[in-house]
Amino acid sequence: MRGLMQEWSLTVDRIIDHAARWDGKREVVTRALSGEIVRTDYAAMRERARRLSAALAARGIGRGDRVATMGWNSFRHVEAWFAIMGMGAVCHTLNPRLFREQIVYIANHAEDHAIIVDPCFQDLLADMLPALPRLGAIIVMGEASEVARDRLPGAVDYESVIAENHPEAAWGGFDEETACALCYTSGTTGNPKGVLYTHRSNVIHTLMTLQPDVFGLSIADVVMPIVPMYHANGWGLPLSAPAVGCKLVLPGSRLDGASLHDLCEREDVTFAAAVPTVWQALLQHLDDTGGRLTTLRRVLVGGAACPESIIRRLRDHGVESKQGWGMTETSPIGSHSKLLPEIAALPFDDQVPWRLKQGRPPFGVDLKIVDDTGNRQPHDGAALGRLHVKGPTVASAYLGGTPGDILDREGFFDTGDIADIDAEGYMRIADRAKDVIKSGGEWISSIEIENIALGHPKVALCAVIAIPDPKWDERPLLVVQLRDGETATASEMLGTLEGRIAKWWMPEGVVFVPEMPLGATGKIDKKRLRERFPAAF
Amino acid sequence: MRGLMQEWSLTVDRIIDHAARWDGKREVVTRALSGEIVRTDYAAMRERARRLSAALAARGIGRGDRVATMGWNSFRHVEAWFAIMGMGAVCHTLNPRLFREQIVYIANHAEDHAIIVDPCFQDLLADMLPALPRLGAIIVMGEASEVARDRLPGAVDYESVIAENHPEAAWGGFDEETACALCYTSGTTGNPKGVLYTHRSNVIHTLMTLQPDVFGLSIADVVMPIVPMYHANGWGLPLSAPAVGCKLVLPGSRLDGASLHDLCEREDVTFAAAVPTVWQALLQHLDDTGGRLTTLRRVLVGGAACPESIIRRLRDHGVESKQGWGMTETSPIGSHSKLLPEIAALPFDDQVPWRLKQGRPPFGVDLKIVDDTGNRQPHDGAALGRLHVKGPTVASAYLGGTPGDILDREGFFDTGDIADIDAEGYMRIADRAKDVIKSGGEWISSIEIENIALGHPKVALCAVIAIPDPKWDERPLLVVQLRDGETATASEMLGTLEGRIAKWWMPEGVVFVPEMPLGATGKIDKKRLRERFPAAF
Repeated sequence: MRGLMQEWSLTVDRIIDHAARWDGKREVVTRALSGEIVRTDYAAMRERARRLSAALAARGIGRGDRVATMGWNSFRHVEAWFAIMGMGAVCHTLNPRLFREQIVYIANHAEDHAIIVDPCFQDLLADMLPALPRLGAIIVMGEASEVARDRLPGAVDYESVIAENHPEAAWGGFDEETACALCYTSGTTGNPKGVLYTHRSNVIHTLMTLQPDVFGLSIADVVMPIVPMYHANGWGLPLSAPAVGCKLVLPGSRLDGASLHDLCEREDVTFAAAVPTVWQALLQHLDDTGGRLTTLRRVLVGGAACPESIIRRLRDHGVESKQGWGMTETSPIGSHSKLLPEIAALPFDDQVPWRLKQGRPPFGVDLKIVDDTGNRQPHDGAALGRLHVKGPTVASAYLGGTPGDILDREGFFDTGDIADIDAEGYMRIADRAKDVIKSGGEWISSIEIENIALGHPKVALCAVIAIPDPKWDERPLLVVQLRDGETATASEMLGTLEGRIAKWWMPEGVVFVPEMPLGATGKIDKKRLRERFPAAF
Repeated sequence: MRGLMQEWSLTVDRIIDHAARWDGKREVVTRALSGEIVRTDYAAMRERARRLSAALAARGIGRGDRVATMGWNSFRHVEAWFAIMGMGAVCHTLNPRLFREQIVYIANHAEDHAIIVDPCFQDLLADMLPALPRLGAIIVMGEASEVARDRLPGAVDYESVIAENHPEAAWGGFDEETACALCYTSGTTGNPKGVLYTHRSNVIHTLMTLQPDVFGLSIADVVMPIVPMYHANGWGLPLSAPAVGCKLVLPGSRLDGASLHDLCEREDVTFAAAVPTVWQALLQHLDDTGGRLTTLRRVLVGGAACPESIIRRLRDHGVESKQGWGMTETSPIGSHSKLLPEIAALPFDDQVPWRLKQGRPPFGVDLKIVDDTGNRQPHDGAALGRLHVKGPTVASAYLGGTPGDILDREGFFDTGDIADIDAEGYMRIADRAKDVIKSGGEWISSIEIENIALGHPKVALCAVIAIPDPKWDERPLLVVQLRDGETATASEMLGTLEGRIAKWWMPEGVVFVPEMPLGATGKIDKKRLRERFPAAF
């Protein structure tokens, strides 16, 4: 028996429609590339997004066509998202921080037909252009004077395009399973893979994020997404903020502590989201200047495990931090570290173990940890397993794949992470599956050992990798890059670990290297380390 | 181009699955009919719900079959909701406060095949039973000793049913457009009409309610739905609370001020939802006893316009109240009176005009006001129009109808209310369409005049109705029931209105009646008044 409720497809155009209609005058503030503060509102943005849709349609872009964006967080970039998605095209956020060869691979694999690009990335685009044969229209997010016409022949400026088009292109009205956005994972193994979000998944994700235990966004908030829009669906914030109609602050390219602090104070930011290094820089700036955060109340920390020092220092500034875990494949919210009431009732120091974990899944996400044969592991905070995730906002295949081809028989996606889950339901990422050390049928977390070793004052960088072992299959090896001018012995390093990890986790040896090999995203390239050190000695 | 996200149907069974899995030990507290406090948790409730599904399946209930419930808010009633919906049957909440003839009409119209009933309603059910030929299984929400076997032959007790069945019946796995719940509107005109919710609409409604500006539920909350589960989908709370996994407090049949205050304090309730008269009773109890509310922080007031005195007195107790407007046809959330930041920044007295309105629509609901020919009216806080509503949680037809047959050409449902919407987007219900007075092409709100007249100390009840007028089409007539022992003149009554309403709104006359005719739900029956007073004099 079918129910009798209205047909109303969950499509992203409705979010900006709602914001424009009910919160049309709510401010959207951008720090432009010039440093200048630019103000607009949701009503104007919707009007301009619709004009941009018309401009794209006039350039031959239709439903399902991929349109790339490469830019910092700005009102134009948010308009472009809605323009592309609202007309039924697919918004492909390119990450300008990748190697050029990777960007070229990704843009070609995605079959991008047009690109909307920040003026500051025109040189980068011009260099890649010969390798991007499919790319047609180039729209530069600025005024006519900002277009590098010599290097990008045929490029047009965003403001002329907006001025010349009328908001009459097709808008909304398609099936909610229609693709709306594309974001590539920059995994360290293999080629980047494209995650193809649907309108449905993005709208459900938006609703999931609003609840108090996730982002908790209210009309009373002033929201600043510091995390770039090209990073894992922009953590959903460019959709979540207009869904509640709250003021939105977009920091552009200036993500240093001083600039962010200035924006927070100037625009009364109450909620912000960023990776740990951004918070580190902001806190350092506050330390250096004696600055205060007078309006910021809640921050989301994601993208990497949040160090305890950041949680404590933010708290000293009256800011409640919460970790969020997720990945491009999960839209990205997979878990959040909101404290259960019985944990929140403990003294702060006793809360820390849970604040350091990646947290619990909101309704709409299910998690499981399984061993190599797929058996679920207990939620005891000790048993490690491969973390799998399931839900309407989780990928079922990569671009070019067949729906379901990356799911297990229960319909879960394997994250490639190794995690444990405690009795309170808090998940903790212990390692990447490819980095975990499998010793005597048990798993050793490389990250846990690294975190302890990193606490040694002489250590600049370190990595724990697996080396083959005839008896135990694999054993850990600690690779260390000392700080400039320091010297140390292997036993000194191992002494740091003594008593803080299980005996059988103790590395078989320590290797000192002058410089760690780093990958495209700045992370230590453990694959190259494993090639260099196939054995302990 | 279709996106590549997981198929994951939005079905209600997943809510209790999630709660049981991630918040299984979270308490659900019920005040039993006996007054005793009974404790369970989400894990136990899911297990028992699945056993009840099996029991219903064993009694021939299958997908799409209607199963009635008639009971107060209790853990068993919540279990029954999930049991019925989780197996793909349709949960039909019967309102025991209606006239018996209405309940019989509704149960037969719905084709209820089974009923799950509170012990206290067994006599009522027994009286109606001869008129309910389709009704098969009767399950009494209690122990064996509580079943009135003499009056309800064949009735079984809930606890034996749970004990005798295994949790192995089909559960979930159906299309999200499947009907899951049925709730009748008790309109004062015509027969009651059935609203048939889908799993999809209920899950989307759940996600919509969680956001801070609507219910704002967090794991840290203790939620008490005082509004009965048979009232407009229980305002969604029996689904919203387990979706965040927070503690749930169910007050049973005792909705008096003393009992509710006791529960609030005993169980640390932080959020509660009820109609204004409940808050009135609770506040009176606090006044009488000098009682305090030490944990309650936020309440939702709905079902009728909230008087200013309640808002102010709750605030004196440290409780922030928010109005919610909705109806059975809207799941029910249609709007909420969350203050915009610029209004919240005003002194409290200046906020009151907005606090008294029914509020703004959350994302997922669109509102419009139109004149009799369907033209949209301005949002200026003055122009009245018929309120129409649209969204995935709004009805498209009543049971027995064809999808869309109650929608206008833009896909909106006509609420039958007359409202205005101000420049800030706040909607105010001015009248029911059938009660508004149409005078010289303009509309006069009967409710607005009544509210002023009610402020006169001699007035017990009053109603403004339309009387025919050869020149103006209709003119208002004020009908007054004075308090016992009081006398008053027409000009005294009209004098109260002087200067507080537009001149052309002034009633043509005043009629004093010894007793107002009341309808089934306790509201003044204006239809009968109009029959009695077809003209002013």
